[in-house]
Amino acid sequence: DGKVKVEIPPTTMATGQRLQLEGATTFDEFGPAVAGHNLEVDPPSLNDLRPDWVRVGDALVASGISLPEPPLRIVRHVCDRMRGLSWKGRVVVAGERNRVGIVTVLPSSAPMLALAFDIGTTKIAGYLVDLDSGRTLARAGVVNPQIVFGEDVVSRIAHANRDPGSEALLRSRLLDALNDLARHLTVGYGDPSECIVDAVVVGNTAMHHFFAGLSVRQLGVAPYVPVTSSSHTEPAGELGLSFCPGASVYLPPNVAGYVGADHVSMLVAADILTRSGSVLALDIGTNTEISLKLGERLLSCSCASGPAFEGAHIRDGMRAVPGAVEHVRVSGDVFHVQTIESAPPVGICGSGILDAVAAMLEAGVVDKRGRFHGAHPSVRRRNGEPEFVLVAAETTGHGHDIVVTSRDVVEIQLAKGAIRAGIEILCRHAGIKSDELDTLVVAGAFGTYLDPSSAIRIGMFPSLPEHRIEQIGNAAGTGAVRMLRFGAERQTARSIGERSEYIELTTHPDFADVFTDELFFDAALGEESVTVAGSGGGSSNVTRNTPPSATNLR
Amino acid sequence: DGKVKVEIPPTTMATGQRLQLEGATTFDEFGPAVAGHNLEVDPPSLNDLRPDWVRVGDALVASGISLPEPPLRIVRHVCDRMRGLSWKGRVVVAGERNRVGIVTVLPSSAPMLALAFDIGTTKIAGYLVDLDSGRTLARAGVVNPQIVFGEDVVSRIAHANRDPGSEALLRSRLLDALNDLARHLTVGYGDPSECIVDAVVVGNTAMHHFFAGLSVRQLGVAPYVPVTSSSHTEPAGELGLSFCPGASVYLPPNVAGYVGADHVSMLVAADILTRSGSVLALDIGTNTEISLKLGERLLSCSCASGPAFEGAHIRDGMRAVPGAVEHVRVSGDVFHVQTIESAPPVGICGSGILDAVAAMLEAGVVDKRGRFHGAHPSVRRRNGEPEFVLVAAETTGHGHDIVVTSRDVVEIQLAKGAIRAGIEILCRHAGIKSDELDTLVVAGAFGTYLDPSSAIRIGMFPSLPEHRIEQIGNAAGTGAVRMLRFGAERQTARSIGERSEYIELTTHPDFADVFTDELFFDAALGEESVTVAGSGGGSSNVTRNTPPSATNLR
Repeated sequence: DGKVKVEIPPTTMATGQRLQLEGATTFDEFGPAVAGHNLEVDPPSLNDLRPDWVRVGDALVASGISLPEPPLRIVRHVCDRMRGLSWKGRVVVAGERNRVGIVTVLPSSAPMLALAFDIGTTKIAGYLVDLDSGRTLARAGVVNPQIVFGEDVVSRIAHANRDPGSEALLRSRLLDALNDLARHLTVGYGDPSECIVDAVVVGNTAMHHFFAGLSVRQLGVAPYVPVTSSSHTEPAGELGLSFCPGASVYLPPNVAGYVGADHVSMLVAADILTRSGSVLALDIGTNTEISLKLGERLLSCSCASGPAFEGAHIRDGMRAVPGAVEHVRVSGDVFHVQTIESAPPVGICGSGILDAVAAMLEAGVVDKRGRFHGAHPSVRRRNGEPEFVLVAAETTGHGHDIVVTSRDVVEIQLAKGAIRAGIEILCRHAGIKSDELDTLVVAGAFGTYLDPSSAIRIGMFPSLPEHRIEQIGNAAGTGAVRMLRFGAERQTARSIGERSEYIELTTHPDFADVFTDELFFDAALGEESVTVAGSGGGSSNVTRNTPPSATNLR
Repeated sequence: DGKVKVEIPPTTMATGQRLQLEGATTFDEFGPAVAGHNLEVDPPSLNDLRPDWVRVGDALVASGISLPEPPLRIVRHVCDRMRGLSWKGRVVVAGERNRVGIVTVLPSSAPMLALAFDIGTTKIAGYLVDLDSGRTLARAGVVNPQIVFGEDVVSRIAHANRDPGSEALLRSRLLDALNDLARHLTVGYGDPSECIVDAVVVGNTAMHHFFAGLSVRQLGVAPYVPVTSSSHTEPAGELGLSFCPGASVYLPPNVAGYVGADHVSMLVAADILTRSGSVLALDIGTNTEISLKLGERLLSCSCASGPAFEGAHIRDGMRAVPGAVEHVRVSGDVFHVQTIESAPPVGICGSGILDAVAAMLEAGVVDKRGRFHGAHPSVRRRNGEPEFVLVAAETTGHGHDIVVTSRDVVEIQLAKGAIRAGIEILCRHAGIKSDELDTLVVAGAFGTYLDPSSAIRIGMFPSLPEHRIEQIGNAAGTGAVRMLRFGAERQTARSIGERSEYIELTTHPDFADVFTDELFFDAALGEESVTVAGSGGGSSNVTRNTPPSATNLR
C-alpha cells in the first residue's frame, strides 16, 4: 500500500540485514555541519623545514580555513593521511559553535557520509546520508539489544542501578548495536571509522543517557531529573562510536526526564517553531510526549500511556507485522478487518485495537464507560470475563478466535485517558480549548497508521476536522537526518530545548481529575463514577497494581 | 656537598622508590593554570526540576564562573561527584586559551596537586607540586624504559619504524612508566586519577612525539621535521595518563626535530626572554641544544655532541653515581681526583672526564691537537695505543687503573668541537663574538657539575669571566614545574617557540670548517691539519664510522 516500514529483524544486528535504498532525493537547500576542502600541500625539503602540521595548517589558511589547535591524535591522523595521500586530499572540517576542527582527510574523490540514529526503547533505526548530495543512501533497523534487560525504560533503569557493571553492560550492548548497524549501513562504502564524518543521535532521555554514558539513576526516582538537558556535540570516539577520528556526534537537547531528544527531533521535523497558530504535536508510545506551541510559548509534558498501542498487555495484541489486524470498520453489526499485507489474521496491532474499540463503541458492544453489553451476539464470557470475538477462528491464520477482552478495553481507556489528559492540561496552560487547535501533529510508528477518526471517536484526540490532523511518521529519525543535512537545524533543536516549558503531570494539581474524567470514551457525556464492568456485573477499579498505570510507570 | 641529585633507581619504577621531599618553599607570586572554587548547590526537589548539570552550572555562574559545555564524561563526573559529596565540593576549573573547562570536583578540603615530567632519553624525572602552596612536595626519577630498545634517540626511532606495533610498544612502555611514576609520587595523597588536576610534560622532540602519540618516522630521515612544533594542551586521558577526568597536560612547543620542548622549558627556567644583552643558553647531552637571545632575536641549533659527557664511549666512563671521579685538579705533575660521595674511585663521570682532559692539557700530557706526549711518566701504551693513568690501581675501589685513553680524548674533541661550532655559528648569525657574550647559561645534569674553567680550558666554552657563566641545573624540570606554578609561563614557552629561528647545522655552509677548527683544544692556536695521534705516531682521522660523530647521529 505504498507505506515504507523500517524492517526490524527479530534479533539484533548480529543477524540483521542490509535494508532497502530510499528513492534518490536531492534537496534545494542544503548545508551540512561539515565541509570538504580539496587541499594540496608542498612536501618537506631541506629548504622547507616546516613541521608537517604547520605545512598543512598553512595550506588550510591559504584556502581560507582557520582552525584552533586540534587534539594531537587529529594532528597525527591528518599528517599521516596527507603523507599517505602524497600531500593531496579532501580535508573535512566541522564547525559547530566553539567546536571547530578537522574531521578527517579523505581521498580527493571520496564522498562525505554521515549517520543518524534514532534509539528507541524497543528498536534502533539507522540512516546513512550522503552529505554531498543530501541523499539518504540506506536505512536499517535493529531491535535494541537492551531489551533482554527489560522491555521498558523503567526496568532498564532498575537493572542499570543494580551496580556499575550492569550499567556498563547496558551501555556496551547499545554501543555494540550502533557500531554493528553503522557497519551494515556502510557496506560498500568502507569502514565507518574511515568514511563517517558526522552523526546525529536521538532517543528518549533514558536512551540518551545510556548512550552518552550518563547516570540513569536519578531517572528512576522522583523528581526524575536528567543529568543534562543541553544539546551536546561530542567526539564520536569519546562516546564509543568508531567513526572518522575527528567526527562528532550531535545530541539534541532533552526537555525533561521523560521528554527526550527524540521528541525534540520530532519537533524539528514538524517545523514546530515556524508554524503559526496553535500546534499540538505528540508521539504516542509507552510514554507519550506532547508539546503545544502557541506564539512564543512551547509547553511539554509526558504521559504514562502504557504499551497497549504497541500490542502489549492486549490479549491478542501483537507488533505491526504481517497478519496483524491494522484496521477495523463496522457496518451495522458486521466488523470488517484489514491485516498488514492482507495476510490471514493472527492478532491485533496498535492501530487495529484503536479501531476495534472505536468500532465496538460505534456498534454498542461497549458503552462510553467501557462496559460490555452482554447482549451483543459476538460478546461471550471466558473465565467469567466478557470478551468480543473480532475474528472467528475459522478465518484466522492460527485457527483461534481473535478477541477483544474487557481487560483490553481497560488498557485502551487508561492509555487514551492519559494522553487526552496531557492534551487537556497543556491546552489549559496555554489558555485554549483542545477542540480549537489549529494543527494536531501525530508522530511515531503507531501515530502513522492510526485512524484519526477512531482516535477522535474514543476521545483520545479532541474533535478536530481531519485536515487539521497531520500524521508525519517516524519523525524522530526524519529530524535526525534533517540535522545531518542542515547543520542550522541543530540551532533549531537547541532553541526548542531552551524554549520548552516542561509541565510535570504526576504532581499537577489538575491531573487526577482530568485523567479520571478522560477515562470515559466520551468525557463530555460522562457523569457516573468510573468503573469497568467485569464478570458477573462486578466492577474493578481502574487503578491497579500491575503496570501500566498512570503512576507506577513513573 | 649540598648538591641535590635526583635519585635514579637502576631499574624502572616497578622497583623504584619514593624520593626525598624538597624543603618547604613558598612563592610570592603565584598563579597556576587551574583554580579551585568551593561550591554549594541546592539539591533537586519536586519544586526544582533542573537537571543536575544545569543546577551545577547555575551555581558556577552565581560564583562568577562561566564555562562552555564540557564533554559528557565531565558532565557525568561532576554530577556524580556533586551528588556523592551531598552537593558541596571544590570545583577545579582550568582556563587556557579556548580550552576552558572543569577538571574535577574535589572534597572541600582536598589540595590541588599537579605533576611535571621531564622525559629524557635516558631518564624520566617527575615532580609533584601542591598548587595551593606552590610547594614541590616530592620528586623522583626512573630510567626511561624505552632504553631496552636502544640507548639513543636514533635507534629508538629506527625501532619504532619497524612496524606500527613497535611504535605502539615504545609508547606504551613510556606511558606505563609515567603512570607508575605518578602513582609513586602521589603515595599518601590518593590515586593520580583522583588527585592530579594539572600536568606539564617536557622532553626532546622524539620523546615528545612518542609521548604525544605522534609519528617519529620523519624524525629519522632528512630533513628531520617534527609533526608539530606548536604547544598543545591536551586532555590527560587522550594521552593515556590516568589523572582527574578533566585534567589537561600542557606540552610546550618544540623548535625543531632536534631542539625539543625540554630545551624550551629550560629557556623558560632561564628567563631567557626577559634578560638583557646577549645570552647563550645550552643544554649539553648526546645532542646539545643551544639558543642565543639578542634583542628580539632568538636563534637555536642542535649539535651532535655524543654521549661522552654522560660517561658513554669513554673507556673508564660511568654515570654520575658514588665512586665516579667528578673533579680532577693538577698541581705540577700531580693529579688530584674527587669522587662522588668521596667513595673509592671506580670510574669517571662527565664532569670528571672534562676536568681530566683539561688537566692533562694543563700538565702537557696532551697537546692542543689531542696528541699524547709519550714522555710523561703517567702515560703508557696498551695494545699500541697511548693512555694516561689517572688513578693507579692501588687507590681505586676495584683494584684496576683508571685511565684516559687517546680514544677518550678523541671523543672529548668531537664533543667539544661540535658544541663550540654550534656556539660560534649562532654568534656569527647574531653578529657578535662568542667571547663577548654577556651571559652563558649552562643547563642539564652534566652542565650543573662541570667546572666552567675546564670547559674554557679545552675550548668548549668561549673564554668568558666566570661571573658571566650560570649553571642552572636540570632546568627542563625546573621550567616544567614553573609552568605548573605559573600558568602565564606557558605563554612564555609559546613565545619562545614562535620566536625561535632554527639554524640547521648539518646543511650550514660554514659548519664543516668551523667544526674542523674547533676540534683543536685551543682553536685560536691551531693551524695544523686535524689529526689525533694514535699508536706508533700514526694518526686516525676524526671522522669515523662508529657513533658518535657529527653526521651519523643525525
